Amino acid sequence: MAANTFGEHIRLTTFGESHGESLGGILEGVPSGIKLDIYAVQKALDRRRPGQSSVSTPRKESDTVHILSGVFEGKTTGTPIGFVIPNENQHSADYGNIAQAFRPSHADFTYFTKYGIRDYRGGGRSSARETAVRVAGGAIAEQILPSGVEIKAYVSSVGGVSLDQDYTHYDLSTIEDNIVRCPDAKKAIAMEALIHEVQSHGDSIGGVVTCVVKGVKAGWGEPIFDRLEARLAAACLSIPAAKGFEVGSGFSGTLMRGSEHNDAFVSGGKTLTNYSGGIQGGISNGMDIYFRVAFKPVATIMSAQKTINTAGDEMEIQCHGRHDPCVVPRAVVVVEAMTALTLADFYLLDKMTRF
Amino acid sequence: MAANTFGEHIRLTTFGESHGESLGGILEGVPSGIKLDIYAVQKALDRRRPGQSSVSTPRKESDTVHILSGVFEGKTTGTPIGFVIPNENQHSADYGNIAQAFRPSHADFTYFTKYGIRDYRGGGRSSARETAVRVAGGAIAEQILPSGVEIKAYVSSVGGVSLDQDYTHYDLSTIEDNIVRCPDAKKAIAMEALIHEVQSHGDSIGGVVTCVVKGVKAGWGEPIFDRLEARLAAACLSIPAAKGFEVGSGFSGTLMRGSEHNDAFVSGGKTLTNYSGGIQGGISNGMDIYFRVAFKPVATIMSAQKTINTAGDEMEIQCHGRHDPCVVPRAVVVVEAMTALTLADFYLLDKMTRF
Amino acid sequence: MAANTFGEHIRLTTFGESHGESLGGILEGVPSGIKLDIYAVQKALDRRRPGQSSVSTPRKESDTVHILSGVFEGKTTGTPIGFVIPNENQHSADYGNIAQAFRPSHADFTYFTKYGIRDYRGGGRSSARETAVRVAGGAIAEQILPSGVEIKAYVSSVGGVSLDQDYTHYDLSTIEDNIVRCPDAKKAIAMEALIHEVQSHGDSIGGVVTCVVKGVKAGWGEPIFDRLEARLAAACLSIPAAKGFEVGSGFSGTLMRGSEHNDAFVSGGKTLTNYSGGIQGGISNGMDIYFRVAFKPVATIMSAQKTINTAGDEMEIQCHGRHDPCVVPRAVVVVEAMTALTLADFYLLDKMTRF
Amino acid sequence: MAANTFGEHIRLTTFGESHGESLGGILEGVPSGIKLDIYAVQKALDRRRPGQSSVSTPRKESDTVHILSGVFEGKTTGTPIGFVIPNENQHSADYGNIAQAFRPSHADFTYFTKYGIRDYRGGGRSSARETAVRVAGGAIAEQILPSGVEIKAYVSSVGGVSLDQDYTHYDLSTIEDNIVRCPDAKKAIAMEALIHEVQSHGDSIGGVVTCVVKGVKAGWGEPIFDRLEARLAAACLSIPAAKGFEVGSGFSGTLMRGSEHNDAFVSGGKTLTNYSGGIQGGISNGMDIYFRVAFKPVATIMSAQKTINTAGDEMEIQCHGRHDPCVVPRAVVVVEAMTALTLADFYLLDKMTRF
Repeated sequence: MAANTFGEHIRLTTFGESHGESLGGILEGVPSGIKLDIYAVQKALDRRRPGQSSVSTPRKESDTVHILSGVFEGKTTGTPIGFVIPNENQHSADYGNIAQAFRPSHADFTYFTKYGIRDYRGGGRSSARETAVRVAGGAIAEQILPSGVEIKAYVSSVGGVSLDQDYTHYDLSTIEDNIVRCPDAKKAIAMEALIHEVQSHGDSIGGVVTCVVKGVKAGWGEPIFDRLEARLAAACLSIPAAKGFEVGSGFSGTLMRGSEHNDAFVSGGKTLTNYSGGIQGGISNGMDIYFRVAFKPVATIMSAQKTINTAGDEMEIQCHGRHDPCVVPRAVVVVEAMTALTLADFYLLDKMTRF
Repeated sequence: MAANTFGEHIRLTTFGESHGESLGGILEGVPSGIKLDIYAVQKALDRRRPGQSSVSTPRKESDTVHILSGVFEGKTTGTPIGFVIPNENQHSADYGNIAQAFRPSHADFTYFTKYGIRDYRGGGRSSARETAVRVAGGAIAEQILPSGVEIKAYVSSVGGVSLDQDYTHYDLSTIEDNIVRCPDAKKAIAMEALIHEVQSHGDSIGGVVTCVVKGVKAGWGEPIFDRLEARLAAACLSIPAAKGFEVGSGFSGTLMRGSEHNDAFVSGGKTLTNYSGGIQGGISNGMDIYFRVAFKPVATIMSAQKTINTAGDEMEIQCHGRHDPCVVPRAVVVVEAMTALTLADFYLLDKMTRF
Repeated sequence: MAANTFGEHIRLTTFGESHGESLGGILEGVPSGIKLDIYAVQKALDRRRPGQSSVSTPRKESDTVHILSGVFEGKTTGTPIGFVIPNENQHSADYGNIAQAFRPSHADFTYFTKYGIRDYRGGGRSSARETAVRVAGGAIAEQILPSGVEIKAYVSSVGGVSLDQDYTHYDLSTIEDNIVRCPDAKKAIAMEALIHEVQSHGDSIGGVVTCVVKGVKAGWGEPIFDRLEARLAAACLSIPAAKGFEVGSGFSGTLMRGSEHNDAFVSGGKTLTNYSGGIQGGISNGMDIYFRVAFKPVATIMSAQKTINTAGDEMEIQCHGRHDPCVVPRAVVVVEAMTALTLADFYLLDKMTRF
Repeated sequence: MAANTFGEHIRLTTFGESHGESLGGILEGVPSGIKLDIYAVQKALDRRRPGQSSVSTPRKESDTVHILSGVFEGKTTGTPIGFVIPNENQHSADYGNIAQAFRPSHADFTYFTKYGIRDYRGGGRSSARETAVRVAGGAIAEQILPSGVEIKAYVSSVGGVSLDQDYTHYDLSTIEDNIVRCPDAKKAIAMEALIHEVQSHGDSIGGVVTCVVKGVKAGWGEPIFDRLEARLAAACLSIPAAKGFEVGSGFSGTLMRGSEHNDAFVSGGKTLTNYSGGIQGGISNGMDIYFRVAFKPVATIMSAQKTINTAGDEMEIQCHGRHDPCVVPRAVVVVEAMTALTLADFYLLDKMTRF
């Protein structure tokens, strides 16, 4: 079971716990001869970094990536790219109270039951801190993709504050203009206000990330079990706190009739509508790929909660520490990274399709 | 790329086109010593079989499975189980008109673009007929699971006709009592009526399948990239026509606050609520696992549609043949099969977790 | 564990027992657009077929391959190629005496110990009959390789009768001119005589197969764990009765000094000598690839042998049935097949190497 | 292609070049609850370390391993174990002369041809320095194996100086008593003398490593393609400079008759002889497993050699730097590591065999 490895040819293997010395990964399968933009990798990490704004955890981490191999004189050599991201700002003492207790809706109980042991400090391996490694790997993977492919994710809802229009109505170059990462400036203000309100009560809130990929030519993806949407779904549902995934028309498409939902082809191979979300039969058709990922409210809240301890006795738990009241503004970056890893894999695999 | 292979240890590899001589598969990793219930395998195929009711395609196929290896004196031997399902009732002539044209929202265009060649008869490899092999494999996989594990899927909506309650309010033993496979008898009648109405217009409609798994003990699933929900999502999104997946609270959970959404543990390791859907940190927690899968309206409809031909010229296409007006009643069986394959894999993998 | 699957991208998955209904396999990853020569596949099977000569088992099997999918109008479609080879000539009664006893140096004991059950008829899954599936798969894989690549294996020794010269001294187009598959006609006669002599005593004898691959350009193979020689070694050691593998100078190279063993490069990238066997750092260098595979004497002999039964009691066993006195003349074809599968995989994988 | 990953469930992924900042790896699949002996890991690295004796390169490296994850309060947690081994003593200037030239029988030419770029300093990724990571991974894997399993490798020949007896005639606890790692003290002196003689001429010499594994119970290994001997062969042939592998009777077994070679079972499931080398049908039978690995003479020698440069022109190359005159004394440790990784994988996989 490749639990810590993602991808078939472009393969990211990760390690690291929240409160260990460092996290890191190995990215295999990167073709040789790419002039690697390390600054872009760091920039992606900066976008995911904690402490970046008032809607994220105040914990400070520089999340500096150190590339240890696979690059020579600025270019990739085709050998694995190993890298580490040191942990810097650990308040392990904050977690003394959870050493013997299971935080509700965290992985404490399941890890302990499965493994009989757990590194409880900050959630250990189950901490969303591991997604920093994905972001670094994804930022390298993005550089493998042919020029013209553009991956853009954004926040489309926070709690009940939701965008009214689909992605075609927004200028996706404005996503970074606000701390919520929402391309609708007015909605962004409302989202921000909602997060602050929730935060003021020591509570948390869920949200949805929409991701759009432009410029993928027809032919990426594999039939049957490795459909592009299946691999994207697995990529996104592997992100901590993700609870749902829909591509193209998604759940709302279930309400439609075929005569309405079918995307008519027109000259040039484009389609008049794009309810398919750019994927047909598991393979890209050249139209925009778009999908949505649901994230639950962050499990760590500041009010007392009922739970049990490792002995099985009921008790109350009071969480401290520094946590995000809403995960979606930072999850945007992780969704982009997982998408880049998935697409880079399919891009290379497609090279083997035809005789 | 294991496009035709599903699973890590319990691995199903499939082959076959809609209008070839037969479909089939190889199921690897089945432990030795299981008294294989071949009748149960055939029964699962019968539930998926075309021509079973007025809401499915009238095409007739017996879908008889022939097991060719891996079983000796009624028991599994630990060697791969090879099997074939002959194709019997092929009207290849029905497809003459699509040899040179791309049916909208089918895989015709993408397969042709990717491979430069396609078996257009009945969709070839992209036909949902390949799911028969999954159902056979899943029915064997189900026999690997420990007793007490029960997988039940049902139709929870057809178009706008939707169940009002969650799964806990229904008697799941009644699912097979109607041809729609819905545990609410009244809603089933409305769903059936809607399908017939749509069918009478040569149109199609989408729907949602809900799947519930009881009896999984805490500890199944793997952290990070092979989370139980990620693998289930990939399993379900690999089914033809699937467009969305949500587990536990899913998309509706994004509207909730953490204080409401968190599942408090109580004595015995149960939780008071189950918004987590039985999975925390990617690992089962012993509560019921439940998830929903969205299916789009079937792409084959009986009205004329705009499209292009293989030369790129615009044209009109008129589909004939025998097709389902709504896929969800039969998809129920495929969702169960993919769930069984996924769970059997994790069940065995968990045997390697602890020293 | 992919015990029944070989390869990463060109993947052969096999099933079947010696005395089941049929054996078969699924070959995945074959590029689309190859005009498949099915006659060449059958011809390869005919070369491996039992009953082909006086030095092979007299058992008769037509070993007819039936291709069930993946080919449309004579060309590969990029979808998996499923195929079966029916078993025809089974004398299961010959094996009644081994139902409760373990034949020495067979897999009876280990399968029974591992699985607690075994199909004892003809060795079941452990029978070398499974190599028919490899030969079919390999003969398809060979058609993926670029023109100019030529794989030729031959018998270089039977017992103590051994070729005096390396492969460069023989005309490899003459291998099929004798039933031993040896390019030295005189030695072939001696080998044949030795096999007949051994056979007349109900005994068996080992031998060595040499394989030469010409026309592989520099660059195939992957560093570190998937070196070309490592994958070839695994391919060959997975053949029943194989006990050794050496590439290039092999074991005799251990006697040499570096100054003698190093292959000097000359203009054009060729080397003056080829002790490397065409592989350096795990990657082909454009010179001929050659290696040798050792096969032990066949374990089934016609004299009484000491053994134990399934209850653990000592006893005598007397084997009957129809068996090869020496495996190497037929193993030649299996070595070629495994080499073709290995090379086709690396050929496709090399397409992903450079940006 | 998992070129940098070894194993299915116990999976070691490695990175790093000879002259980069550090090498390292991630070991996945280690069960939780193992009290990790980090001292044993460092000790294994010390045995492989350069500069350890007069028969190894004088280059000095402490090869200190830093474990970064997967261990909590001294015990494994079931999460991946990430580790790095910093490079300390790099004389990159020694390699200026090979930046534009291909060293004979090195990987310079093949890497450059395949990737179009190479880190020429010390061979970059193709340097045997990467085996340090394998040794660290193997030393952890060894701690997964059940008690009683003992892996011992030793030098059985250097050039023409060869042990006369098989492993059963030696006291394997004496292997570390001499710098050649040979259990025959007299032969060790002759081997040492031969290495020194070769070294004094700036030349190198090959040799053979024998490996013995005691205490493996019957049942480890998988049929068909993942036979224990096939996986061991791949493991050993993936080691730099390895040219051959034989198990049990190996190449000498090809000279024998079945009546002589067959291993008769006796009460208790033991066999009277062990020409099978402890493996039958790809699965361990409970007897000692033993195999031999051939290593060519080290390619780096101190005399001038003919070669070509990257432009294809013929030239002379003169190597400098600090190199082993004979690789086998240090290769012993790498063979043990690869064996441990292979066996730990099969040990865990066997847990899934039976219902």
